[in-house]
Amino acid sequence: MTIKIVLGGPRGNMGKEAITMIEEESQFSLVGFLVRSLEDTDAIHEIRSLTNDKINIYDNATQCFQSENPDVYIDLTVANAAYKHSKEALNQQIRVVIGTSGLSTQQVDELSAIADVHQTGCIIAPNFALGSILMMLFSQMAAKYFPDVEVIEKHHDGKIDAPSGTAVKTVEMMKETREKKRQGHPNEHEVLTGARGADYDGMKIHSMRLPGLIAHQEVVFGSKSQLLSIKHDAFDRKAYMEGLHFTVLEVMKLKELIYGLEHLIELD
Amino acid sequence: MTIKIVLGGPRGNMGKEAITMIEEESQFSLVGFLVRSLEDTDAIHEIRSLTNDKINIYDNATQCFQSENPDVYIDLTVANAAYKHSKEALNQQIRVVIGTSGLSTQQVDELSAIADVHQTGCIIAPNFALGSILMMLFSQMAAKYFPDVEVIEKHHDGKIDAPSGTAVKTVEMMKETREKKRQGHPNEHEVLTGARGADYDGMKIHSMRLPGLIAHQEVVFGSKSQLLSIKHDAFDRKAYMEGLHFTVLEVMKLKELIYGLEHLIELD
Amino acid sequence: MTIKIVLGGPRGNMGKEAITMIEEESQFSLVGFLVRSLEDTDAIHEIRSLTNDKINIYDNATQCFQSENPDVYIDLTVANAAYKHSKEALNQQIRVVIGTSGLSTQQVDELSAIADVHQTGCIIAPNFALGSILMMLFSQMAAKYFPDVEVIEKHHDGKIDAPSGTAVKTVEMMKETREKKRQGHPNEHEVLTGARGADYDGMKIHSMRLPGLIAHQEVVFGSKSQLLSIKHDAFDRKAYMEGLHFTVLEVMKLKELIYGLEHLIELD
Amino acid sequence: MTIKIVLGGPRGNMGKEAITMIEEESQFSLVGFLVRSLEDTDAIHEIRSLTNDKINIYDNATQCFQSENPDVYIDLTVANAAYKHSKEALNQQIRVVIGTSGLSTQQVDELSAIADVHQTGCIIAPNFALGSILMMLFSQMAAKYFPDVEVIEKHHDGKIDAPSGTAVKTVEMMKETREKKRQGHPNEHEVLTGARGADYDGMKIHSMRLPGLIAHQEVVFGSKSQLLSIKHDAFDRKAYMEGLHFTVLEVMKLKELIYGLEHLIELD
Repeated sequence: MTIKIVLGGPRGNMGKEAITMIEEESQFSLVGFLVRSLEDTDAIHEIRSLTNDKINIYDNATQCFQSENPDVYIDLTVANAAYKHSKEALNQQIRVVIGTSGLSTQQVDELSAIADVHQTGCIIAPNFALGSILMMLFSQMAAKYFPDVEVIEKHHDGKIDAPSGTAVKTVEMMKETREKKRQGHPNEHEVLTGARGADYDGMKIHSMRLPGLIAHQEVVFGSKSQLLSIKHDAFDRKAYMEGLHFTVLEVMKLKELIYGLEHLIELD
Repeated sequence: MTIKIVLGGPRGNMGKEAITMIEEESQFSLVGFLVRSLEDTDAIHEIRSLTNDKINIYDNATQCFQSENPDVYIDLTVANAAYKHSKEALNQQIRVVIGTSGLSTQQVDELSAIADVHQTGCIIAPNFALGSILMMLFSQMAAKYFPDVEVIEKHHDGKIDAPSGTAVKTVEMMKETREKKRQGHPNEHEVLTGARGADYDGMKIHSMRLPGLIAHQEVVFGSKSQLLSIKHDAFDRKAYMEGLHFTVLEVMKLKELIYGLEHLIELD
Repeated sequence: MTIKIVLGGPRGNMGKEAITMIEEESQFSLVGFLVRSLEDTDAIHEIRSLTNDKINIYDNATQCFQSENPDVYIDLTVANAAYKHSKEALNQQIRVVIGTSGLSTQQVDELSAIADVHQTGCIIAPNFALGSILMMLFSQMAAKYFPDVEVIEKHHDGKIDAPSGTAVKTVEMMKETREKKRQGHPNEHEVLTGARGADYDGMKIHSMRLPGLIAHQEVVFGSKSQLLSIKHDAFDRKAYMEGLHFTVLEVMKLKELIYGLEHLIELD
Repeated sequence: MTIKIVLGGPRGNMGKEAITMIEEESQFSLVGFLVRSLEDTDAIHEIRSLTNDKINIYDNATQCFQSENPDVYIDLTVANAAYKHSKEALNQQIRVVIGTSGLSTQQVDELSAIADVHQTGCIIAPNFALGSILMMLFSQMAAKYFPDVEVIEKHHDGKIDAPSGTAVKTVEMMKETREKKRQGHPNEHEVLTGARGADYDGMKIHSMRLPGLIAHQEVVFGSKSQLLSIKHDAFDRKAYMEGLHFTVLEVMKLKELIYGLEHLIELD
């Protein structure tokens, strides 16, 4: 069976990778692009150059979905456009994959209700990196047995915020399973301020920033005479395409809205 | 509640660590030792020196269990003694923890049947290192999503066999969830023989041996533009005591025989 | 002072990175390209698109060097072209940087002699990755104090040969300082063939190949209760540009031919 | 040739390891112990139990050195005793190895002057871990070429101070060769305070503290698309004995006082 796909947001960095991924997968067929405006001729010209196939381009979601009748709509635009396009798709019983984290709770709830009414699958995935999601899930599991844990995340020096969103999400997930405890020596002392890193509920986070680094995180659990470490390295946006591929296959089996790939991982 | 414990095999390396662990845990009470022979006065003298408490020593299991009526019998002897002592304990409805892998299938089956009859918990644990067990479980889970995987295990240069038993156990576990595939370049070529390591069902294993190394293993999964790595380091036998502690608490809740701590780990 | 540069081989992968590097460095001025043939209009068109500046293109080395009189000629072509162009450059007292390892001993000797006659600097650099060169130099130094050492190199699964050239070069360099010894347990035994890796003069090399990996190497030294590890990761060709930049500055100070950046590193 | 050694401070943790090391080395001969007081019978009894050989014990340095006439005096006591004993040894033209960092500048200067007068070797080594010293030296060398660098040091959670003395010493050494620069994004922002670690002259230091950790440090250099990492792991005090062994051999060749093993390492 071929899965027919309409892609929203083909010109973005993620969109470009998605085109390559879809075209390389024989099970997938790219049948349409959804863009902001057909009048932006530069944009249309660029999109034409991204693929050798003659793929229809639309700037009207209703018309796009009616004409192409895809199995899945992948939205790689921004939150508000994603919300509008996805609502339209679900109402036409077209499955939806959304690759942004920006939707409001109200928007997510509304999409979820529509998905339920039409028994149509919808996956919202703020993070498509499967390896990163496994790292977080495994860390959450391990924190139950090893409450002493620190996170070291390493990113290129163009990154402004520290710690990274993934690091914060990781400690949030560990907090749910970890027995709360104060780590380190009761009298520990920073000879140089900041040496012991940031604290989140007793867990320490360290952020390294160097040119050459891309996006890396290691979660280290310590217990008497043993260490358990779980590490993820992402080298570029291609790291997300395996997760997007997986998500398209998963959404075909769903009849409801799922938020976050972690809920799709089968661990036994 | 205090858990009363009889320990079989107190003079071994594991036995000595177990005494320390039991004495440090206020929930546990060490009420007896089971040894080979009370006539070996040197052995008895050594055991006496291992603890300040006056703990009864027996060389007859039946009598030991009747006199002390422990909640749990921990056997850290060898396979045949473990089998005999554990059978006696289970028949007296005393829970059993066995720390050896040497029992025959027939012996395990027999103990399992007795445990069922008496609704008495029994755990056979060839490996008490919780971190190592989590590493193997996580690797098994990840192999479902990332079939390209290699194992690098590192041990001190006093180790004779390569790869380690843990490495082999890990690839065996991954084989159950991993879609079989040939890894590496189809035409890959060893300029120096052995460079690509050992092969197990398409997965490569590399064994490093150096003075200074203790017992380490890393499982590395690769996928387009991302890596997921799971690593365990064990520095000495104390690494097993957290697992033994956990096992004693778990066996209190059981009414059957379980083989392998991996079946006691709750992952959600 | 501005360093005027002619670049040979602008269309290759390295060539394209070199153009970017030269244009980003205010000290450097790109004054000409040397190509195979001016009649290949596609090639000329592509080269024109690589830079906004109007840079002269030549297919005759003599004429190119005479017209542009550069301070440095960078050759990123193949061995034979590199030999011919560099000979011409040195004869015109123009300094040369060659980024290929393919020259014959005779060719290198000849260029060296010409460099001496004209007191003109020439650097042949088979490897421009400074970090990789430091890794090799440090490994060579450490091998004097820690003769027990293994190398683990990790590359993408599109690589055919194992071990990598860098790994072989590293053990060759360590052989010069390391007291020869047989490593590992005298009776060590491979339960699965290849587990202990490839052997070079008693040192073991392990080659990991996985999608997601790029180009990584770790050299691990073990001694009683301690380990020293030196690791290099290269993520793409940009990793070579820092070394090329360094080499251009170094060749300005030289009056002879140097083979290998390792001879330009000052370690104290 | 056999090197005759008197050991001061045999009962300390380092002293006990030193006895084992000296007895295992056929080139070395342990000829005497120097202790605080011969009247402390418990201490004398303990020292007797540390070795099967009948080794003379003294509490008077002058008499000890005159009677035994050793080639080397190893002092593993505390600063003031080390100063007094070493002065006496040097005045008798006996070479000295001191394993403490606590001597005052004045004391070191005085010992240095005496060493010069008698042309007698003396090595003061605050750190005997050769691997750690190589890590620091290599880091110092690399910092010249890669000014972007961060240090992550990891220790057991019984350690009070952060960062470790070795981490501080490492950045001090790198400061000497590194071109000063501000690292990270100019606008970098700590969402959780402390995430970016401690700052020393623009270099960041991160301190991890977990049970299971022993003594580890990694120095990570980043540059465009490449990373260079230098790591040291020490697992117990035996890690210092290789350095002590090396120091004894080195002091035999010296005619002056050297402070720090780093000055004895030959790097080419």
